[in-house]
This record gives sequence, C-alpha cells and structure tokens, in this order.
Amino acid sequence: MEGCIFCKIIKGEIPSIKVYEDERVYAFADINPITDGHTLIIPKAHAENLWEISEKNITAIHQASIKIATAMLKVLGPVGIAVMQLNGKEVNQVVMHYHLHLIPKAAGGSKLKMTEWELVPGDVDKIKGIGEQIGAAI
Amino acid sequence: MEGCIFCKIIKGEIPSIKVYEDERVYAFADINPITDGHTLIIPKAHAENLWEISEKNITAIHQASIKIATAMLKVLGPVGIAVMQLNGKEVNQVVMHYHLHLIPKAAGGSKLKMTEWELVPGDVDKIKGIGEQIGAAI
Repeated sequence: MEGCIFCKIIKGEIPSIKVYEDERVYAFADINPITDGHTLIIPKAHAENLWEISEKNITAIHQASIKIATAMLKVLGPVGIAVMQLNGKEVNQVVMHYHLHLIPKAAGGSKLKMTEWELVPGDVDKIKGIGEQIGAAI
Repeated sequence: MEGCIFCKIIKGEIPSIKVYEDERVYAFADINPITDGHTLIIPKAHAENLWEISEKNITAIHQASIKIATAMLKVLGPVGIAVMQLNGKEVNQVVMHYHLHLIPKAAGGSKLKMTEWELVPGDVDKIKGIGEQIGAAI
C-alpha cells in the first residue's frame, strides 16, 4: 500500500534485518526493541489489522510465530515470550499494517511492563451480559 | 490435563461465561477483566504454550479471534483491541494452558498499560547479530 513503511520493507525499499520469510509472511527485527530479540511478523499482503487480514494470512503469521519462537528458545534461552498484536491507534498501533510482536524476556532484569497487571475480579452480572452479547453477535 | 483450571472449564467442571465454541477452541469472558469485554480463547486440547500447541489448534484459535473481534466491534464499538498471549510464568502467564487475550478498549478513559511503551532505538549491530542468529536457527 502506497506510503506504508512495512510494505516498503517487504519490497526492500527500506532496509530491514530479516529473521524469516515465506510465501505469505516476512519477519524482521524491531529496531526499537523492547528486549533483545524483539521480532515483528507481518503479512506480505497489506492489511491494517485483525479485521482486514485474511484467514490464510493470519494462519501463516501464527505458524511462523511457532517457528520463530522455537528458534528464539534455542538461541536466546528466554524465560518467556510475550506475543502481542495491536489493532487501532488508540491502543498504540503505530504502523497501520498488521504486525505480531514476539518479545522474548531474558532471565533477571525488570519485568515486562506490558505483562504486568493486577487481577481484579469484575462484576459477574456485567461480565455475563457483555459476554453473552458478544457471543450472540458471532 | 489433571489440575488445570482451563481444562476443567472446557469440561464444564468449573462454570464460565461462554462467548464462542467450535470443535477445537473454547472462548469465555475473563472474570478479572482489564476492560469490558475482555475475552480468552483457549484450545480444547491442553497445551501449555506456543511451543506445545499444535499448528491446527493455533490456526483455530486465530480464526476464532477474527470472529470474536468482529463481534466485539459490532457490540462494543471499541476504539481498538489489544491481542496478547503470554508464554512463561516470568512474563505473567498465570494459567499454564495456552490462552489468547482479546482486550477491547472503549473510547476515552485511561490508556491500556500493556500497550504503552516508548520507542527507543536499539544498537543496530547488536540487533542485527541477534536477528541473524534467530533466523539461522529456524
């Protein structure tokens, strides 16, 4: 898509550090890494988000995520990996081309900010009402 | 798996607020919701994490995520959805059965903590070295 920096990376018009590639996906190192090894996986066909990506391409992304996470385990020996994918500028999606973050965490050091939240029980009746509404809309 | 609370939820031994179900996956409302509509999608076959889940089941999870996210859009009209999946206790995986979080954000209110991080450029040579190592291990 015209003006999309991830489309330019796929075309090689912007350089990137390639980690993996197949027919449908391209994976490369995040140059603003949250942790060592932070990698992005994107579909080659432009799609802005979860609502636009095709079923075949989301499948390819997550098949690739298993391969890359397995390689990370061998190479980096992380204590965990956070997988994150943001949809919408208001949840901090910065590039409007679907991308899956793989964020490996090394032993020691501070916790990943994105994985820390307090478990606070919600109002069960409210949760039930919303859950049933979502379910009914599928 | 013996003692796994998500396996018990799938079997109906622990009650849950069902959002969606198919042959391979079960989705239900998180009872400690970060936001209204916070939903978890799990594979029916026990797998601890990204390294254990089968290709067919991870595909089914993410196909279901499109359906549920689309329903969330209709019902809740969120400004965005954060999708997150944690692997390992040290990145705050609390239940050791693979689960995908869908966290819709309503307009207004505070930002989602997990989606806020500063973009800090890393050392390109270091990033390149690690990226190439991961790529070579695939």
